[in-house]
Amino acid sequence: MKIDIHNHILPKDWPNLKDRYGYGGFIQLQHTCDGKTAKMLKDDELFRVINANCWSAEERMKDMDATGVTVQALSTVPVMFNYWAKPEHTLDFSKIINDDLASTVKQYPKRFAALGTLPMQAPELALGEMERCMKDLKFSGFEIGSHINDWNLDAQELRPFWKKAEELDAAIFVHPWDMQLGGRYKKYWLPWLVGMPAETTLAIQCILFGGVLEDFPKLKICFGHGGGSFPYTLGRIEHGFNVRPDLCATENKFGPRKYIGNIFTDSLVHDANALKFLLDVMGEDNVILGSDYPFPLGEHHPGKLIESTKSLNSETKEKVLFRNALRFLNLNEKDYV
Amino acid sequence: MKIDIHNHILPKDWPNLKDRYGYGGFIQLQHTCDGKTAKMLKDDELFRVINANCWSAEERMKDMDATGVTVQALSTVPVMFNYWAKPEHTLDFSKIINDDLASTVKQYPKRFAALGTLPMQAPELALGEMERCMKDLKFSGFEIGSHINDWNLDAQELRPFWKKAEELDAAIFVHPWDMQLGGRYKKYWLPWLVGMPAETTLAIQCILFGGVLEDFPKLKICFGHGGGSFPYTLGRIEHGFNVRPDLCATENKFGPRKYIGNIFTDSLVHDANALKFLLDVMGEDNVILGSDYPFPLGEHHPGKLIESTKSLNSETKEKVLFRNALRFLNLNEKDYV
Repeated sequence: MKIDIHNHILPKDWPNLKDRYGYGGFIQLQHTCDGKTAKMLKDDELFRVINANCWSAEERMKDMDATGVTVQALSTVPVMFNYWAKPEHTLDFSKIINDDLASTVKQYPKRFAALGTLPMQAPELALGEMERCMKDLKFSGFEIGSHINDWNLDAQELRPFWKKAEELDAAIFVHPWDMQLGGRYKKYWLPWLVGMPAETTLAIQCILFGGVLEDFPKLKICFGHGGGSFPYTLGRIEHGFNVRPDLCATENKFGPRKYIGNIFTDSLVHDANALKFLLDVMGEDNVILGSDYPFPLGEHHPGKLIESTKSLNSETKEKVLFRNALRFLNLNEKDYV
Repeated sequence: MKIDIHNHILPKDWPNLKDRYGYGGFIQLQHTCDGKTAKMLKDDELFRVINANCWSAEERMKDMDATGVTVQALSTVPVMFNYWAKPEHTLDFSKIINDDLASTVKQYPKRFAALGTLPMQAPELALGEMERCMKDLKFSGFEIGSHINDWNLDAQELRPFWKKAEELDAAIFVHPWDMQLGGRYKKYWLPWLVGMPAETTLAIQCILFGGVLEDFPKLKICFGHGGGSFPYTLGRIEHGFNVRPDLCATENKFGPRKYIGNIFTDSLVHDANALKFLLDVMGEDNVILGSDYPFPLGEHHPGKLIESTKSLNSETKEKVLFRNALRFLNLNEKDYV
C-alpha cells in the first residue's frame, strides 16, 4: 500500500474568472484538440503546459497502477491559491476547486482523498468553507501556502484558522510558493531549487517560533519537499534560538526541538542519504510519502526511493509509504483494500 | 592542532570613510572608554556591538588558547565588503583591511593566516590587489560575498577573478551576506537562520551550473555554514538539473554531483547528525573547521562538535580539524608547531 500526500490536480474546466469577477490575473486552461495536453494561461501568458494526468482521474489511476500508488491525497496547484484576489472571489473559486475534488473522491473513493484550498487571506471566510469541506464533503484537510501574501504562518490573523483546523482535526499540508522569480533568481530554476526549500524552512520556523503549536498542540501540519532545508539547518536554527532569545524567543519560550515528533514532512528529497537523514531528524512516524506528481521536479515513480533504500527496515518503509499518511489524513486502511 | 577557517576580525581603527570618500554608508567603530567593547555604526545607526576579541589579536589568542585553536585564518566582517561603493574607494579600503590583516599575521605568524577582501564589483581592480596580497603579503586567499551586488558568482564579469584565483592558487572562502532583512524576514533572526543558508546554496548552485569549475578546475572554494542547505538539497538540485536541462544545463552540461569532492564547506552546523551527514555528502577531505568566531551564532568552542562526535574516527577528525585546512590554505604544518 502506498499513499501519496503530495500531488496536484486541477479541474478539467472552470468558468472564465475574468468574466466572473471583472478583473484578470487568474489561470485558465486552454486544451488542445487531441485532449492530451493543456496550456495553463495567466491572462494570455503561458504559465505551464500540463498533461491529461493533471486533470483526469482516469489518467492518474493508470499512472498510479503502474507505480503501485494506492491513494493520492489530492490538492490543487499553488498558483491556484489566488490569495491575491478579492476574498469573496477566492472563496468562490475555492468552492469550485473543492467541489471538483469532492466529486473525484466520490467517484473513486478507494483511490483518492482530498486536501482542499481556502481563501486564507480572509480567515473569517475560510472558516465556513473549512466546516463545509470537513463535515459535508468529508475532506482529510487542506493545502495552504507557505505564506499568505504579507503574512507568515505565525500571523495573529491566522490564529482562528489554526484553531478551527485543530477543532476539525483537519490535516494541513504546507506548500512553498510565491518565491522570488526575477533578479538573482532568474537562472537555473533557482526559485524552485533554492527558493522553495527556503520558503518551507521559513514557514516551519514561523510556526514553531510563533508558538502556533503551543496554542494548538493537536494540529497536524506537514511540510513539502522533505521540510525544505529545515532538517539540515535545525542545529543552526536551535542555536540561534538559544543565543539570541531577544530575537527568536519573542513569542514562544520553547526552542524548535520541542516540536520534533509533532510536525510532519513529506519524503521528497531525491537522495537516499538525505532520506535517511530526514528520518533520523524528524522521526520515522513523521515522514510521509509525497511525490509532487505529475510535475517533473517530483519523484516520477512515487515511493521508489523509500522502497529502494536498503538501510531502512520494512517497518519503517511501511510507515513512510502509508501508515503515517493514514494517521495524518484520518483514513482507515480497510477502506482502501 | 585546530585551524579555524571561518572567523571575523576588524582593524581596531580606520580613517573616517565619509570624510575620505565624500559620502556616507560605511561602517565606523566607536570604542567605549574601557576598551572592552565598540559599536559598529553605519553613519549614525547601530549595526552591532562587538567585543575586543573582534579587533585585538591578543584577546583572540586568549580565547584560542582556552579552546585549543592553533591558527585562525582571519577574514573581515561581510558588512565591510563595501561592494556598493565606488570601486576605487572599495579598493582603497580593501587595502586598509588587507594591510591590517597582514600586520597581524606578521606579528603572530604561528597563530594567524589571512583571507583578504577585494573590490569584487570591479574585477579589473581586484586583480592587482590579489597579486599584492598573495605575492607581497603572503595571504592564503580571500573571503568574498555569496553574490556581488546584482551578480551571482557565475557572472561573466567575474571570470577574470576566478582565473586569477586559480593562477595564484588562492583559497576562496564564500560568505553569505546581503540577505533580505525586511518584509517577511523581519522576525526571528530569519535573515541569518534561513536567508544565509539559502544565499550559500544559491552561490554553490551558480558556481556549479555556471561552469566555473569547468573553466577553472583547480580552484579551491569553501562555502560557510556547512554549505547552507546544499548538502541536504543536493538530490533536489541534481534532479532539477536532470529533468529541466533547458533551464539548468544552459551553461554547463555536467550536473552538480561531478563537483562533489572538489568544493569545500566549513563544519558549522551545530548538530552531530548534520555534521555526520555533511561529511557523508561532501567527503571527509572537503569539510574544514569553521566557527564564525567571535559572533554568537558561531560555535563558541571551535571544533567541539567535531571532537565530541563519537561516530567519527580520529583520522577523520584530524582532517576536519586541521589537515584539510592546511591543504586548502597552502600552509605547512611544521610552521605552526
